[in-house]
Amino acid sequence: VSARTAGIVGLGLIGGSLARELDRHGITVLGHDADTGILSRATRDGVIAGRLGDGLERAAEVDWFIIAVPVDRAIDVLHAAAPHLHQATLVTDVGSTKRSIVEAAGALDLGARFIGSHPFAGSHESGWAASRTGLFAGARVFLCPTAACADSTVLEARTLWRMCAADTEIIDAASHDRRLAWTSHLPQFLSSCLALALLDAGVPFADTGPGARSMLRLAASDPHVWSAIGADNADNLDAALQQCELAIARLRSALAGYADTCRSGGGDTDPTPFDPAPLAALLSRGSRYTTG
Amino acid sequence: VSARTAGIVGLGLIGGSLARELDRHGITVLGHDADTGILSRATRDGVIAGRLGDGLERAAEVDWFIIAVPVDRAIDVLHAAAPHLHQATLVTDVGSTKRSIVEAAGALDLGARFIGSHPFAGSHESGWAASRTGLFAGARVFLCPTAACADSTVLEARTLWRMCAADTEIIDAASHDRRLAWTSHLPQFLSSCLALALLDAGVPFADTGPGARSMLRLAASDPHVWSAIGADNADNLDAALQQCELAIARLRSALAGYADTCRSGGGDTDPTPFDPAPLAALLSRGSRYTTG
Repeated sequence: VSARTAGIVGLGLIGGSLARELDRHGITVLGHDADTGILSRATRDGVIAGRLGDGLERAAEVDWFIIAVPVDRAIDVLHAAAPHLHQATLVTDVGSTKRSIVEAAGALDLGARFIGSHPFAGSHESGWAASRTGLFAGARVFLCPTAACADSTVLEARTLWRMCAADTEIIDAASHDRRLAWTSHLPQFLSSCLALALLDAGVPFADTGPGARSMLRLAASDPHVWSAIGADNADNLDAALQQCELAIARLRSALAGYADTCRSGGGDTDPTPFDPAPLAALLSRGSRYTTG
Repeated sequence: VSARTAGIVGLGLIGGSLARELDRHGITVLGHDADTGILSRATRDGVIAGRLGDGLERAAEVDWFIIAVPVDRAIDVLHAAAPHLHQATLVTDVGSTKRSIVEAAGALDLGARFIGSHPFAGSHESGWAASRTGLFAGARVFLCPTAACADSTVLEARTLWRMCAADTEIIDAASHDRRLAWTSHLPQFLSSCLALALLDAGVPFADTGPGARSMLRLAASDPHVWSAIGADNADNLDAALQQCELAIARLRSALAGYADTCRSGGGDTDPTPFDPAPLAALLSRGSRYTTG
């Protein structure tokens, strides 16, 4: 199984990188992007061979149809393309949430030919300018089939991602969204929380050290992409953020004793050493977690 | 101004790296570490020329005396060394908190010769094995004078840190601890919170992606070092964690609407697009912060 022609809607970091991989494998890539400047640039760069058209009419010519727009726009694209997808043997997307798009594909009678994809790769950078071949090399790609997904569709999706040197893992959409809320969305939103806390406290970014910078890197990501992901996985993400609140509350509770005592010294020359044991126990648990 | 002999207590990442820098500059370094194995290794490595002794008796021979133990032990070391510091023209420490040690030095009548140091560098790695020359190159080092600090003491401290290619900044201890609670301690503890949340939710570390790993890196740091810092700066850190709770609450509140609506579709084929505007506004603010 392989495609001769692929259509990609959305030429950002993920869609653009996919376009480069497919083009490199000799597949004719037709593209669309809401930003016509990007579309022109992708064509000029020799990656996009033609345009799908504003109504996605030329989706009729493609063997593989790939939706690579933010998740709040993916279903609209699916609806717009559906009437044209006569020839496609694989319809997929690359969004970070999977329940809503898989459900929408099933409802559109595309269930046999649709399988959701989520390449667990990326960057805090975004846009066509950041796209590159190799982005997916060694990355895990979650594949979420519809209830009616054909075996051949799974094979086509595996072929697509093997071209990108990625490893695929099949998982149902609900489990995917639940798992990713913790392993991806929570860290992302926590980085934003740190940025908001520092901003609201009036702490200049220039004052932050190397550790803080590493914790703020994700917050620089595209806000639209991530607000759409957060909205589409709000129930699971909320549960994860709540667990984080609990962890903060535990740390604050372990700190509470010291806050009263550590500054009580005044001119006192007695060293009165702290007992950091309860705090150390919490930090030790966290440290052990990261060693797998 | 320069020293011929320096004494360093604590040969971990910071103390060990300092020892290497001073040795490289031809200064005779006497050392002490609670772990005699480390002391032997540092001597075998040719960095430590001799031992300060269990009672720090040979502190009497040093021009510069540097305390590089976790902050909950620094004041004890200062007390133990004080009777021997006849010759020292500079007494300093390298802890991440500065109020308590600066206060203790003043109370010990070491005020004229003491200035607290905090090299704003480091790593999630720790111990002699991780120590190296170059660790402080280009790093900022905060210098916190006592009320009675002599000008010559400031000069000596600047000489010390210039040897390490670091940039010094003078700041009073209270301002230092307040600022660092946000720019360093908060990100550190937030990383631990994320680790605890994932651990308590039963999420295997192996399932986490590259973004999560970057958010978990700091949590791998030495729990004793950081619990001592947290305890000694508990009042400021608690305020910072509280601000973070506020940011999480804001995000959860922005998510709340979606959590109810986004899964209401069932078999509904209507795409009912989300309005991620309120969430996007929060993430945008966070994103703009990181672009400084």
